Amino acid sequence: MNKFIRVDMTTKQVTVDEVPAKYAGLGGRALTSNFVADEVKPTCHALGKNNKIIFAPGLLSGTTAPNSGRISVGAKSPLTGTIKESNSGGSFSQKMAKAGIKALVIEGMPTDDKFYVIKMDINGVTIDEAPAEILGGCGNYKAIEILSAKYGEKVGIALAGPAGEHRLPSANISFKDPEGNMRSAGRGGLGAVLGSKKVKAVIIDDTGAGAVPIADPEKFRAASKVFAKALLDHPVAGQGLAAYGTDVLVNILNEAGGLPAKNFTAGRIDHNDNISGETLNATITERGGEGKVSHGCHPGCIIRCSQWYPDKDGKYITSGFEYETIWGLGADAGIQDLDDIAYIDREMDDIGIDSIETAVAVATAMEGGLLPWGDGKAVLDAVKQIAVPTPLGRILGGGTAVVGKVCGLFRTPVVKDQAIPAYDPRPIKGIGLTYATTPMGADHTAGYCISGNILKVGADIDPLKKEGQIEYARAMQIGTAAVDSTGMCLFVYFGIADNPGGYQALIDMINAQYGIELTAADVDKLGESVLKVERAFNKAAGFTNAHDRLPEFFEYEPCSPHNVVWDFSPEEIDEVYNF
Amino acid sequence: MNKFIRVDMTTKQVTVDEVPAKYAGLGGRALTSNFVADEVKPTCHALGKNNKIIFAPGLLSGTTAPNSGRISVGAKSPLTGTIKESNSGGSFSQKMAKAGIKALVIEGMPTDDKFYVIKMDINGVTIDEAPAEILGGCGNYKAIEILSAKYGEKVGIALAGPAGEHRLPSANISFKDPEGNMRSAGRGGLGAVLGSKKVKAVIIDDTGAGAVPIADPEKFRAASKVFAKALLDHPVAGQGLAAYGTDVLVNILNEAGGLPAKNFTAGRIDHNDNISGETLNATITERGGEGKVSHGCHPGCIIRCSQWYPDKDGKYITSGFEYETIWGLGADAGIQDLDDIAYIDREMDDIGIDSIETAVAVATAMEGGLLPWGDGKAVLDAVKQIAVPTPLGRILGGGTAVVGKVCGLFRTPVVKDQAIPAYDPRPIKGIGLTYATTPMGADHTAGYCISGNILKVGADIDPLKKEGQIEYARAMQIGTAAVDSTGMCLFVYFGIADNPGGYQALIDMINAQYGIELTAADVDKLGESVLKVERAFNKAAGFTNAHDRLPEFFEYEPCSPHNVVWDFSPEEIDEVYNF
Repeated sequence: MNKFIRVDMTTKQVTVDEVPAKYAGLGGRALTSNFVADEVKPTCHALGKNNKIIFAPGLLSGTTAPNSGRISVGAKSPLTGTIKESNSGGSFSQKMAKAGIKALVIEGMPTDDKFYVIKMDINGVTIDEAPAEILGGCGNYKAIEILSAKYGEKVGIALAGPAGEHRLPSANISFKDPEGNMRSAGRGGLGAVLGSKKVKAVIIDDTGAGAVPIADPEKFRAASKVFAKALLDHPVAGQGLAAYGTDVLVNILNEAGGLPAKNFTAGRIDHNDNISGETLNATITERGGEGKVSHGCHPGCIIRCSQWYPDKDGKYITSGFEYETIWGLGADAGIQDLDDIAYIDREMDDIGIDSIETAVAVATAMEGGLLPWGDGKAVLDAVKQIAVPTPLGRILGGGTAVVGKVCGLFRTPVVKDQAIPAYDPRPIKGIGLTYATTPMGADHTAGYCISGNILKVGADIDPLKKEGQIEYARAMQIGTAAVDSTGMCLFVYFGIADNPGGYQALIDMINAQYGIELTAADVDKLGESVLKVERAFNKAAGFTNAHDRLPEFFEYEPCSPHNVVWDFSPEEIDEVYNF
Repeated sequence: MNKFIRVDMTTKQVTVDEVPAKYAGLGGRALTSNFVADEVKPTCHALGKNNKIIFAPGLLSGTTAPNSGRISVGAKSPLTGTIKESNSGGSFSQKMAKAGIKALVIEGMPTDDKFYVIKMDINGVTIDEAPAEILGGCGNYKAIEILSAKYGEKVGIALAGPAGEHRLPSANISFKDPEGNMRSAGRGGLGAVLGSKKVKAVIIDDTGAGAVPIADPEKFRAASKVFAKALLDHPVAGQGLAAYGTDVLVNILNEAGGLPAKNFTAGRIDHNDNISGETLNATITERGGEGKVSHGCHPGCIIRCSQWYPDKDGKYITSGFEYETIWGLGADAGIQDLDDIAYIDREMDDIGIDSIETAVAVATAMEGGLLPWGDGKAVLDAVKQIAVPTPLGRILGGGTAVVGKVCGLFRTPVVKDQAIPAYDPRPIKGIGLTYATTPMGADHTAGYCISGNILKVGADIDPLKKEGQIEYARAMQIGTAAVDSTGMCLFVYFGIADNPGGYQALIDMINAQYGIELTAADVDKLGESVLKVERAFNKAAGFTNAHDRLPEFFEYEPCSPHNVVWDFSPEEIDEVYNF
């Protein structure tokens, strides 16, 4: 990966440079965050011409390393105002890496009103006008079909959906997956940044690319084998996720009393059987047809937590049907019918809007009287309005913080204006520390303390107690920042957390690829340095420790069934970033 | 003024205490801001049970001092997240002061869903259930009629309109004026705070109250006379404002090239004659009927800048028809018909929504495609929807920052999420420093540098140059914080800025009333101390110098006709608060 591509959308000029030396050892989140910190003015407007957006494959992307196909996207976020890295599956990362492209930077802003498609291949970069038929409300499923027909069925595609075209703060970036469906860099509104630059899509065609060079192929193969075994041997990474998808968590979290219900007014629901991973699996199996219990979101995935959810006639409705989405609509918004939830999930993918932000926005809108509680049909209709967008669609597309503002609510579950996902921080205290302190705004993937608090993988910490949580949330965030830089799916953590050999194999693969000698300590240092860079950006953008706080209602509204409140002091919370 | 009243809306308990010693010498903004800083947790949610709202007459309110009838309201703002003082005319302040009430604090939050009316008189405080007919969309004009019929025609009334009931971030607090119409504590959404506490209205009945005690009545009378003469002798305070209202500024600002047009994309309009103060005056005069060219917004006002604007049949449409509102709708949103603007102004008053925030939100919504440019009828219809509220009404009632978010705009004219009013900061640099640095969020009244930049009252500074602006913006903010503590209308500044005797007379009145010996230096110190308290609150709430910035587009989009950009460096801006 020796090419560093810049596309200036003001001038439509393309520059293909060698990778700057300072970025040579970085990939994924480490690269996107360092780049944004280096080149984006922290106080700039996220939708103005001075923001820049960067796509970067992880360090291991493009290789045969299992689960190494995550693509990182970075920019200043229009949702949170913070620095943002959001990563996704799909085939984009592997193809970019194979084509030797370390990063694509899109900067500037056109003065005309046209939308464009940026196409990269091994020969260079072209900027085309976007086909009219994929604009103006065309859904992502259709747009991928049209773009695949035009640019080739096997190309990788990154796409701003209708939500991104309208620069809505919850717009995601959708990436074509191996079967032509989508995965998303969901959080933080990066689709709106792409839309602000009038880039409808980015195409990567790796035709003619050779294999990614590996310095020590034998060592790489050996390490890769150990690593794959570590994943497959683990009950969560190797079995649970493939069988039930991430939705396996519904029953686990409900049992733990940490499944936020009815806009975070309780921690448990009665209709968990309607929406659980077990029901999801049984329904897919029973309906057959195009349904798939398990598939991978990117080439090389061996965890295969995704699935195709079919309708009663066996026809595909949606894929990548994640726990957090199902929780948001099913528990937080109280929609009891899994089919209703599936159609809404499909719609959100088709519009290109973050399914976590939107599901929580929907639940908050229900509390605010904008939508009837638990009404899946009404929600589907409302979510469709995001593509137009109608005023209601704009409110929902504005994200949970906007809904809270226009409904005058104090129970608005956001940190740094990003929606709190599917794990209540009162009875699961570790995850609350991640929500509060990560530079990303509320984000479970930034330090998944559910692992040690609930799943007891990698650690065993009482979720109801404060003991050990600060150190754990710190370690998880540091480790995650490092993993997010490798191109690895976060779920590899389950396979290596309690398996030192598996962890070493991950490091060995990097060393074998690049001919270097990283140690575990180096990896920690990398994670720490990424977090420090991100935090410094946020500080310059105006964020302080006062923003590292959960919404106040968590402090005085107890969460049933455990009837506990959020009770970390500001001083304790601030200890998480004491490194 | 020896009573300090607290109403706890959680328990419905009322406490009437002596004024705490630390607040004895404070009034108006000095009192509200010190109180909020003392008792409100800066990181609390502005619409949660831990915010408190305080009403405080100025130091001179209740006396015969001309123009001393402003009431200050303070709380944490749901619009900006900062500390907020918003003040208003009407008869409330004078009556509260006469009844001996230094402050009314409303705290807590009911657990039921009813709305209440708090009634204060010289005997005590009662809490009644609000009459059903003033709830659920009843306009303020009607509500004042009903409340006056119930509590007495002469009572003072503070009111949360439909916008406040719905806790919209732009909701104002409306105060009954001497003729039964309204004035507003407009900015910062304090009506939403009142609404969150389920207080529909506060009544002050001063029946039976004696005169406010004056330590040295003779000295007071003498000073009052000098002060009144200073106001009446001044061409702006004594003549211009009475003749043309604040709308006199349309032609002045247009001529100066600092009248923001079409969502801040230019500094001058061609249709200024349609909406100017001269036209306003001529129209009122010509139409006759209930029209009044000039009247005072509170008892004791001798500047009389307000007016009653009648329809073609001479029937009252609206009063308090201010320049900033007319600018916002007429120039920023491009509505060319003054009658259209008047009907919208009436509607905003009736709904209880800040006419500056809403007018700018309307213009921003036009840029975002939510409303057609310049269409007064469409805007009236949209503004009416705020009372319902429909989704569009909620977006507009959410304020300009929300409109910018849901429309994905970078040209969103706000500072600290509060709309920038009627003076472009690029060609009038002094006011830009006030917008950027005042603890209130963009607010021209926090340091009205238009005075020395454009009107050449009190100073003569080239508006297009940076020289002298930092010191001037600092001095104006300090002086304003002091004036806001006296109960004086800000326009007294015009009368005393170039008249040392007039200024001394203001100080003499305070000294004569309280039997003290304040000097001009003490007044400055008071102003400085208020700003420091406010800024400390904001800092603890998470605000930093990075928030003391204008929107980025001012830095790179030149404003015609002078074609200048905002060019103060961050370091220069930060010098304003170097005291």
